[in-house]
Amino acid sequence: MARYSPVSAKRRKPNPTERRRDLCDAAIALLAADGAKGLSHLKVDRKADVPDGTTSFYFRTRSALLRAVAERLAELDLQSLQTIADSADSQGANPSPSLLAQLVIQAGSEPQLSRTKARYELTMQAARDPAMAAILQQATDGFTKLHSEILVQLMPHGAELESAVIEDLSNVTLTFINGLLLRFAHGDRVVDSPEQLDGILSAIAAGILKSPQKGQLTDGDAAHPARRRDTG
Amino acid sequence: MARYSPVSAKRRKPNPTERRRDLCDAAIALLAADGAKGLSHLKVDRKADVPDGTTSFYFRTRSALLRAVAERLAELDLQSLQTIADSADSQGANPSPSLLAQLVIQAGSEPQLSRTKARYELTMQAARDPAMAAILQQATDGFTKLHSEILVQLMPHGAELESAVIEDLSNVTLTFINGLLLRFAHGDRVVDSPEQLDGILSAIAAGILKSPQKGQLTDGDAAHPARRRDTG
Repeated sequence: MARYSPVSAKRRKPNPTERRRDLCDAAIALLAADGAKGLSHLKVDRKADVPDGTTSFYFRTRSALLRAVAERLAELDLQSLQTIADSADSQGANPSPSLLAQLVIQAGSEPQLSRTKARYELTMQAARDPAMAAILQQATDGFTKLHSEILVQLMPHGAELESAVIEDLSNVTLTFINGLLLRFAHGDRVVDSPEQLDGILSAIAAGILKSPQKGQLTDGDAAHPARRRDTG
Repeated sequence: MARYSPVSAKRRKPNPTERRRDLCDAAIALLAADGAKGLSHLKVDRKADVPDGTTSFYFRTRSALLRAVAERLAELDLQSLQTIADSADSQGANPSPSLLAQLVIQAGSEPQLSRTKARYELTMQAARDPAMAAILQQATDGFTKLHSEILVQLMPHGAELESAVIEDLSNVTLTFINGLLLRFAHGDRVVDSPEQLDGILSAIAAGILKSPQKGQLTDGDAAHPARRRDTG
C-alpha cells in the first residue's frame, strides 16, 4: 500500500467538493468556538489555512456559507447514524443501549460536540432564515424517524398505540432530548451514559402511558413548526 | 389625579436608572428580532429613540451591555413570577394549574416570548463569557427553586423521597422545560396550556418514581454547570 507523507498530502490541491467540505468543517469549528458572531469569510480562510478570498470564492454570501454548513452538518449526522447502525447490526434488532441513546450521548462529546454547538448557532439563525430552517428541518427529519422507531421498540405493545398517544410520546421525549442537547452544548453533562438515557426515555414513556391525559398532552399540529411559520 | 400627555411624558428626561432600563429593553427587542449579530450600540440608540452615542455612554463595551441585558431579564423574570404568585394567592397553597406551568407557558407568548428568545441568544454567549454565565445562573436559580418546590407538591409523598430521586426528578423535568422553551423560541408551541404542561410533568415524575433505575438516571454533580466549568 502506497504511503503519502503529510506534507505531500497537504500540498495536493483538493478538488472543489473537498475544498467546500474543508471550508464548512472550518466554519463548524469557528461557530462552535466563537458563535455566529465569530464567523466571517476571512476567518474561515485562516482557520482552513487557505489563501484569503477562497471562502468568498466558494460561498459568495454569508447566507450561502451558513446554508452549506447546515448541509454539511446533516451529512455528518447521517455518517454518525450509519456508523452506530453498522456497529449495532451484530447485536440484533433491539440493541441495548438503543441507537438513539448512543447517538444523543455521542453528541455531548467531541468531535460531535462541536457540531452540536454549531447546530444551535444555526438554529438561532434559522428563526430568521426560512431556507436555513428548511435545511435544518431535513436533518431533523432523519433523527425524528429514528426516534419514532425506537420509541415503538421501547413500548411493550408499541404498534397498537393510538396515533395521538404516539404523538405525545414522540413530542415529549424529543423535547427532552432537545433540552439535553442544549445542556450538552453548554458543557452540562447531566446525563452521561446511553444506558441512563434509555432509562429516562423508558420512564417518561411509561409515565405518559399511565397518564389520564394521554393523547392530549401535546399539540399534534405543532410537530412541523417550519410549515406553520410559512403560513404565519 | 393629574394627567400627563404622551408628548410631555416622552420629553421628560429619564433618570439614569430609567435610561439604562429603557436601553436594555430596546436591546432585548433587538436580540429577539435579529439575534446577537443584530445588536450594536448604535442600533440600540435608534431602537430606543435616543441620541446616537447614548448607549455607548451608559455601557462602554458590548460585554457591559450584554451583562446589563442579562440582569434586566432576571429582573423581568422576577416580576413575572411575582405577578403569577400574587394572582395565585387567592387559590390556596396548591394552585392548579401550577405556578411553574403558568410561568413556562407564558414564556411562549409575547411579551415574554421576546425575553425567551433574547435569553437564548445570551445563553449562547455565556458559553464564552463566565461573568455572563454567572448572571444567567442567578436568574436560573430562582426558577430552579420554584421548580423544586412544585415538584415536591406534585408528588404524593414528595417530602419523603431520597435526595438522589428528587435530583433525577428535578434534572429530567428541568431538561424537558429547557427543550420546551427552546421550541417556544423557535415558534413551535408543542404544548399550549399550563394544564397540559402539568399533565406532562406529572407523567414524567410518575414514570421516574416507577423506574428501576430511579436515583441513578442523572448525574447529580452536573446540576451546577457554571461551577463545574470554573474548575475545568
